[in-house]
Amino acid sequence: MNIGFLGLGTMGAPMARNLLDAGFALRVWNRSAEPVDTLAAHGAFAASSPAQAALGVDVLIAMLADDDASRDVLVDGGALAALTPGAIVVNMATVSLAFAREMRAHCEALDLRYVAAPVLGRVNVAQAGKLNILAAGQPNTLDALAPLFDVLGQRTWRFGDAPENANVVKLASNFMIASAIESMSEAAALAQGHGVAGSDFLDMITTTIFNTPAYTGYGASISKQVFEPAGFKLSLGAKDVRLALLAGEAANVPMPFASVLRDNHLDSLAHGEGQRDWAALSRVALRRAGLATDET
Amino acid sequence: MNIGFLGLGTMGAPMARNLLDAGFALRVWNRSAEPVDTLAAHGAFAASSPAQAALGVDVLIAMLADDDASRDVLVDGGALAALTPGAIVVNMATVSLAFAREMRAHCEALDLRYVAAPVLGRVNVAQAGKLNILAAGQPNTLDALAPLFDVLGQRTWRFGDAPENANVVKLASNFMIASAIESMSEAAALAQGHGVAGSDFLDMITTTIFNTPAYTGYGASISKQVFEPAGFKLSLGAKDVRLALLAGEAANVPMPFASVLRDNHLDSLAHGEGQRDWAALSRVALRRAGLATDET
Amino acid sequence: MNIGFLGLGTMGAPMARNLLDAGFALRVWNRSAEPVDTLAAHGAFAASSPAQAALGVDVLIAMLADDDASRDVLVDGGALAALTPGAIVVNMATVSLAFAREMRAHCEALDLRYVAAPVLGRVNVAQAGKLNILAAGQPNTLDALAPLFDVLGQRTWRFGDAPENANVVKLASNFMIASAIESMSEAAALAQGHGVAGSDFLDMITTTIFNTPAYTGYGASISKQVFEPAGFKLSLGAKDVRLALLAGEAANVPMPFASVLRDNHLDSLAHGEGQRDWAALSRVALRRAGLATDET
Amino acid sequence: MNIGFLGLGTMGAPMARNLLDAGFALRVWNRSAEPVDTLAAHGAFAASSPAQAALGVDVLIAMLADDDASRDVLVDGGALAALTPGAIVVNMATVSLAFAREMRAHCEALDLRYVAAPVLGRVNVAQAGKLNILAAGQPNTLDALAPLFDVLGQRTWRFGDAPENANVVKLASNFMIASAIESMSEAAALAQGHGVAGSDFLDMITTTIFNTPAYTGYGASISKQVFEPAGFKLSLGAKDVRLALLAGEAANVPMPFASVLRDNHLDSLAHGEGQRDWAALSRVALRRAGLATDET
Repeated sequence: MNIGFLGLGTMGAPMARNLLDAGFALRVWNRSAEPVDTLAAHGAFAASSPAQAALGVDVLIAMLADDDASRDVLVDGGALAALTPGAIVVNMATVSLAFAREMRAHCEALDLRYVAAPVLGRVNVAQAGKLNILAAGQPNTLDALAPLFDVLGQRTWRFGDAPENANVVKLASNFMIASAIESMSEAAALAQGHGVAGSDFLDMITTTIFNTPAYTGYGASISKQVFEPAGFKLSLGAKDVRLALLAGEAANVPMPFASVLRDNHLDSLAHGEGQRDWAALSRVALRRAGLATDET
Repeated sequence: MNIGFLGLGTMGAPMARNLLDAGFALRVWNRSAEPVDTLAAHGAFAASSPAQAALGVDVLIAMLADDDASRDVLVDGGALAALTPGAIVVNMATVSLAFAREMRAHCEALDLRYVAAPVLGRVNVAQAGKLNILAAGQPNTLDALAPLFDVLGQRTWRFGDAPENANVVKLASNFMIASAIESMSEAAALAQGHGVAGSDFLDMITTTIFNTPAYTGYGASISKQVFEPAGFKLSLGAKDVRLALLAGEAANVPMPFASVLRDNHLDSLAHGEGQRDWAALSRVALRRAGLATDET
Repeated sequence: MNIGFLGLGTMGAPMARNLLDAGFALRVWNRSAEPVDTLAAHGAFAASSPAQAALGVDVLIAMLADDDASRDVLVDGGALAALTPGAIVVNMATVSLAFAREMRAHCEALDLRYVAAPVLGRVNVAQAGKLNILAAGQPNTLDALAPLFDVLGQRTWRFGDAPENANVVKLASNFMIASAIESMSEAAALAQGHGVAGSDFLDMITTTIFNTPAYTGYGASISKQVFEPAGFKLSLGAKDVRLALLAGEAANVPMPFASVLRDNHLDSLAHGEGQRDWAALSRVALRRAGLATDET
Repeated sequence: MNIGFLGLGTMGAPMARNLLDAGFALRVWNRSAEPVDTLAAHGAFAASSPAQAALGVDVLIAMLADDDASRDVLVDGGALAALTPGAIVVNMATVSLAFAREMRAHCEALDLRYVAAPVLGRVNVAQAGKLNILAAGQPNTLDALAPLFDVLGQRTWRFGDAPENANVVKLASNFMIASAIESMSEAAALAQGHGVAGSDFLDMITTTIFNTPAYTGYGASISKQVFEPAGFKLSLGAKDVRLALLAGEAANVPMPFASVLRDNHLDSLAHGEGQRDWAALSRVALRRAGLATDET
């Protein structure tokens, strides 16, 4: 199977590397050259444009930042147009439902097969090939992708034929992570407001009934009030909450927790915290309670 | 060590039994007779009143329903007054901060040592002696209780000298559980609104990044929309959210997630769901989105 | 008609004065002496205790700060007990529903007739005898009070036999005022965030479609960011929002706006703004958006 | 002054008629023919296309439904391109900030002068020529429009040079109207939950401290639970709340009331109430409290 891979950021690079190591032929492209060179040194073909990466491949994987970057590269950048009819396009980025539908239409017009397959897991999980892959698309297309997904992830979850379903699931998942952060933030502020160190509370709760990565990772950052380096930037979290709200709006689903999250992310952004780790959202609860001190 | 134990409900009964089995001498009392008889058959002394249960004991443990029940039994029921000065009172129930302070004052006036030690864990955890005990009080008093806590729980967490601190920690913990339920509920409604079965979403998320009891247990109930029998009643959850909000109010800590939880619990109560399992809170998100169907 | 009047604060003093000027015989009491002396100079009898103010009167009016002050004076202070059976007790303060029911029970036990009659209007309206009186109680008792209410207010609104109904109406009204303040605050912050002066926006909106005292008064304070002197203290507004939420809770009525108001009032209190005018609530929206500057 | 007028809906038609009656030469266009014919009967020139309406006019006024309709007609429909350089484009519709900026760019590219001038007031106010006009644009351009605005409105408010400022002000105003509706809805539900008829409460509050059109109009609908015919459709209100939230997002301004409004509008839409009057939003509070009955 011949594969094109667009987007070699913190997630894309290790994913592409795993495919290469598993013996797949890979044509790679990235906006900046350095990650391309690294993979070329391990045998990948360094494409000079998105279209060149798409030439003659059976499967084109895209792992780009957001809707705009995906549209720039896949549509305007000519990647889709360069594909052979019948080829499979796998979008693994977290994008809006509206864009997922737009992509689907583009692919249908070009006789391409479109699959959405966003992932759960951060960079270390991607490196270990242990992602959870949230996939939606035609069953036989998903069947064809199984050998590839098995390299990238520990398990592929299928959510039906409509590709955008997988994007809904991804947005719902990220909404739940944001909720976990906010929940810890308010609980820690409550404790701290009564003289119990937030870190004492969080250390207890994340080693007892909330002992799972979504809590232990962000909980440790909140506990120490250390938000650099950013594992996942707060500004990206804000974007995902926005996309979840838009998805809710499209189906008339009220999401009051997501609404609170939206407002608190804006509060964070207004206070210059967008480039910090998502856990910096915890600053809002402390600040509002008059408990915020300079973090270390 | 001679122990009095007041309140043999679903949690209190297995806790008392474990103490008995570990060889402690136990004087037990309960509003209804049946659980008293059961423990008496295993060697406990069956007290006919709260005061009689307190006579001559070194430690008096109370595991009663709420503030009112605790006040009725401990203060108005004469249990505190029957204790020998220097005795230790251990309140393991989930009560308000205001009541915790009230109890502390009563105990000081009677020269008793007051400890708050609410627990994390439901009935099966209590039976297994694997509770997490959230304790606050004088260090040497807590030291004296260690042998007893070691029987009841897998670990005792200390949160300082002020007993009410442990109650804050317990309320913050329950608030986090309620938030987990609401977060799953909104996420599942979002998925369902877009044609993905809520159960498909929840099965995935609770076996991947939220694979921890607070999510798996309630998640399974939401997934199946089965809320009977009630492991923990929604009306009790509503009470705990209320107490968390009151605690936040006392320290000027805004808690917007808790505010959403309050409104949604009221919505549930207004729809007659108070006696169902806490997971029935998920009905609110579905109902508001026009997606509620009769549960099985 | 012989009248006792308890509580000569900013509202009570002008109300009592109007009754005096209308020719009613008045026995007055207040915690501090000065307002008593002023009224005595105009012909009122200066009572030295709540009980003395109640001696032999047909109607006892109370206009005290809150639940606690009302209980202290009326119940614990002996005023109710000093009344002649059949006398009418008119509580015009903003109190909780729970306290209203408590008062009703006390009065029934003493064979007194209890009426709740909180008012709409601030001090200048009280001086002008133009209050709106929100009354509930037995119809014939309300009939008997008509001459008195006609002196104090421009109109008396009746809300049924149950006195606490009038308190619900008062709490609902104050909730609406708080909502008006919050609504202006968010709108002004939105304008300001886009470079339109909040004052330009508020001046327009309060002279066009929201040209009514609840908006013009608080709107002017927000527009100028001047919060002293406090016409109505933010801390009292926080109390009223709390009572509205409690009333909602008692009837299972979710009130998401009231929940937002609660959190924002706590934010204000945490930032030391409790003694300022209620309009200082507007600081929260500006602060969260990073737009707060020192007010003049 | 020669005027083109695009969009003769419920608001546009009476506005165009007033201009005609004031002696302005008018070229009018509308998607459906009937309102065009009516105005033609009074002397307007009936244009067969947006472009034809724009031919040779000094001022082109647009009063179209939303962003999409405005773009269709002005940009894609060729109206802008048909104007003479130097002509003034006055967009009086409620549009998003993003679209306002888009329009401004289009106009600059064609050497046209762009003014945003949304209005406050419903159809009867438009008929009476008593609108409040919220205008932003170059001062000399606004000066030139004064004779025209004086026919349409009772007063023109200026909000600076950037046209989109006027759109922010309009969105902030509509947000305040939505907040007034929600505030009445929750207050009435609270009253009703305690046995006071919502209508009794609303009749009192809208004739006392909230006696202003935004409250009296919607308050009467809520009081009677009559939502047909729709003076302003709930679905349009939902759109305006969405635009206000987007505007807040663009400037990092948290708007928790707007977030509540968003969720409640979605709840209404999910229950099929989008085509009813905006006051039908009140159904949400009643429904959540279990108090909703069939309206008349």
